[in-house]
Amino acid sequence: MITRLWAEYRVLLLFAIRWLGISGVVGALAGTASAGFLVALDWVTTWREAHPWIMMGLPLGGLLIGLLYHWLGKAVEGGNNLLLDEIHTPQAVLPLRMVPLVLLGTLLTHFFGGSAGREGTAVQMGGALADQLTRGLSLRRRERRLLLIAGISAGFASVFGTPLAGAVFGLEVFLIGRLRYDAILPSFLAAVCADWVTRAWGVGHIAYPVLAVPSFSLLSLGSAALAGIVFGLISRVFAATTHRISRFFKLKIAYPPLRPLVGGVVVALLVWLLGTTEYIGLGLPVILRSFAEPLPVYAFALKLLLTALTLGAGFKGGEVTPLFFIGAALGNALAPGLALPMPLLAGMGFVAVFAGAANTPLACILMGVELFGHEAGLYFGLACSLSYLFSGHRGIYSAQMIGQSKH
Amino acid sequence: MITRLWAEYRVLLLFAIRWLGISGVVGALAGTASAGFLVALDWVTTWREAHPWIMMGLPLGGLLIGLLYHWLGKAVEGGNNLLLDEIHTPQAVLPLRMVPLVLLGTLLTHFFGGSAGREGTAVQMGGALADQLTRGLSLRRRERRLLLIAGISAGFASVFGTPLAGAVFGLEVFLIGRLRYDAILPSFLAAVCADWVTRAWGVGHIAYPVLAVPSFSLLSLGSAALAGIVFGLISRVFAATTHRISRFFKLKIAYPPLRPLVGGVVVALLVWLLGTTEYIGLGLPVILRSFAEPLPVYAFALKLLLTALTLGAGFKGGEVTPLFFIGAALGNALAPGLALPMPLLAGMGFVAVFAGAANTPLACILMGVELFGHEAGLYFGLACSLSYLFSGHRGIYSAQMIGQSKH
Repeated sequence: MITRLWAEYRVLLLFAIRWLGISGVVGALAGTASAGFLVALDWVTTWREAHPWIMMGLPLGGLLIGLLYHWLGKAVEGGNNLLLDEIHTPQAVLPLRMVPLVLLGTLLTHFFGGSAGREGTAVQMGGALADQLTRGLSLRRRERRLLLIAGISAGFASVFGTPLAGAVFGLEVFLIGRLRYDAILPSFLAAVCADWVTRAWGVGHIAYPVLAVPSFSLLSLGSAALAGIVFGLISRVFAATTHRISRFFKLKIAYPPLRPLVGGVVVALLVWLLGTTEYIGLGLPVILRSFAEPLPVYAFALKLLLTALTLGAGFKGGEVTPLFFIGAALGNALAPGLALPMPLLAGMGFVAVFAGAANTPLACILMGVELFGHEAGLYFGLACSLSYLFSGHRGIYSAQMIGQSKH
Repeated sequence: MITRLWAEYRVLLLFAIRWLGISGVVGALAGTASAGFLVALDWVTTWREAHPWIMMGLPLGGLLIGLLYHWLGKAVEGGNNLLLDEIHTPQAVLPLRMVPLVLLGTLLTHFFGGSAGREGTAVQMGGALADQLTRGLSLRRRERRLLLIAGISAGFASVFGTPLAGAVFGLEVFLIGRLRYDAILPSFLAAVCADWVTRAWGVGHIAYPVLAVPSFSLLSLGSAALAGIVFGLISRVFAATTHRISRFFKLKIAYPPLRPLVGGVVVALLVWLLGTTEYIGLGLPVILRSFAEPLPVYAFALKLLLTALTLGAGFKGGEVTPLFFIGAALGNALAPGLALPMPLLAGMGFVAVFAGAANTPLACILMGVELFGHEAGLYFGLACSLSYLFSGHRGIYSAQMIGQSKH
């Protein structure tokens, strides 16, 4: 029996040591990439806010991105979906060029004032950087899956400063309705390391307010449930709108580089008509305000439309920070009608719209706890599980497979 | 399309409203049962501590429990495993007598000084109470599964005051290596309601210290990983010892009621030899001390042995609070050798030994965050995922099925 146990633990120890090393490297790569990305993104955003006329260049920026991907990036155009596809049915190591292309594409998008996020960029950089180890370590198919999941976790964890949410996001994102634990160690190790490396580079994250929580009652339970349902519906609208706009552009404009050019014209015109730059870029200032003061009730819809247009037309970035914006603004708008405080509803929307759109409720609950404190955890749990249930089976990542029907 | 969407959402809304109602009832039942149980347990514990001679009655208590279950409880002897079996392959509605039997059995165990926990009791009460709705609502097989999972979540959430951990525990506990989301709404609703009902009855929970976290380094990462591995090994030792002692008693003593009688003699003798009552009952005072001062290095081993003897012989209760004790004492003992503060290691052990023994790492991470604050979340994540990996495929619940191999 001792021999059998030792044989088992020998394998396990080797596995753990091996993945401690691999995840450390993945974390260092993804964390460094995220740090550089966050610094550059910050610079680009500050510059744009100081020179709003740059938005007139959005169509040009779109053309640039379009040409970049048309000439150099056909193999990596799939973005996040390509990563998920490789987890499901491994084909070939992701080209390293995915990293500079998505980085440059995202920075151009934000520089010229598109409305987009950053998790797609971080996740693609994390995944593609991690995948470069596949050849050097001659990983087999199964191990490569763990590596890709670890890369996703590392990218997500480091760009938002949320290691637990990042780790679980990687485990949760490729299947709807089911979570598999075989990558649990690589995910947690890579997420923790990546987050640490980003912080070690001196790159910080926004501090969100710790949310005060009212004493629980049937009224607050009902309010939380109702809000969760609305969050789920809107996350479905977001995913459907983005997919539809993307299909429309593909159908109407045959030459790919022209799609973001035309999209850039539309977005720039809309922003000019709106007369405010609040709805472009990441939108972090508005997100922060959603915890403090009432926003216009239509704020979430504007952000939804501009983001769907930006990403549907072929600009780069991600969906998550705009989803935070949409959710927080929507929660803010729901506050007068529900028996919960405005900041709490904003925080619930922040995580729950994302939970519904990405079909990752557990990662979003953990994110809520990491960003806003565990006191509100129960409300995040209710909002995320209802949003997940009401967001349909087709989220923002079309390569997600259905592991189990939601209901 | 509108018709199709409406048809989909009609089903979903009915599902949500139905389960809002059902989970509310489940939560009220389980929460009330837990409240009563916690009050009685507290009374029993206080009385025992004031009259330590009562321990001489432990064999008698054992005989009483044995006779109770032999005469009245043959159908519910399986306890937690019976619940898990019913989730996997539904046979028949759980007899309501499961509730008074496990309640009385647990109170007798603690009254006479056995070393046991309380989650088994709460989970069995929650599950059996919930299952009584099956007939009244004429639930089908699939819905009954959701009901049982909700009952487990409600019992766990309310007895520990941790709604998020309770909700995820119910989802996570019946399969190793895989988590299914179809019960996510019933679980969260029932857990939140049950926790609220217990608190509404005026029953509070122990407040654990918020754990201070050192700045992260490779040394602390290595320490956390090493500690996680040790926690996993000990959780395996605990499960194996309990199973083995149980098998031994079954093999050597044919008449079931005599098993806890003999077990009671052994436990009472051991405690008399030890000359302290610190290792019997729940052991909450020692758990609290493990965050504040060094404990004897052997404390975890004594608690492990006494609990395995108590439960293996057929006393009632649960494994979880003793696992908290074992983990916290072990973390405390590891502190001098590792580069992490003692309270943090105690907290990591508290959740991680349980994570390994029950194969529920995500619930345990959430529990860590709910009890000790989210600042230490990253350490809980590392400790729980490593403990889960190193605890083997046979945990404390032998009816758990392997959904996916751990490695």
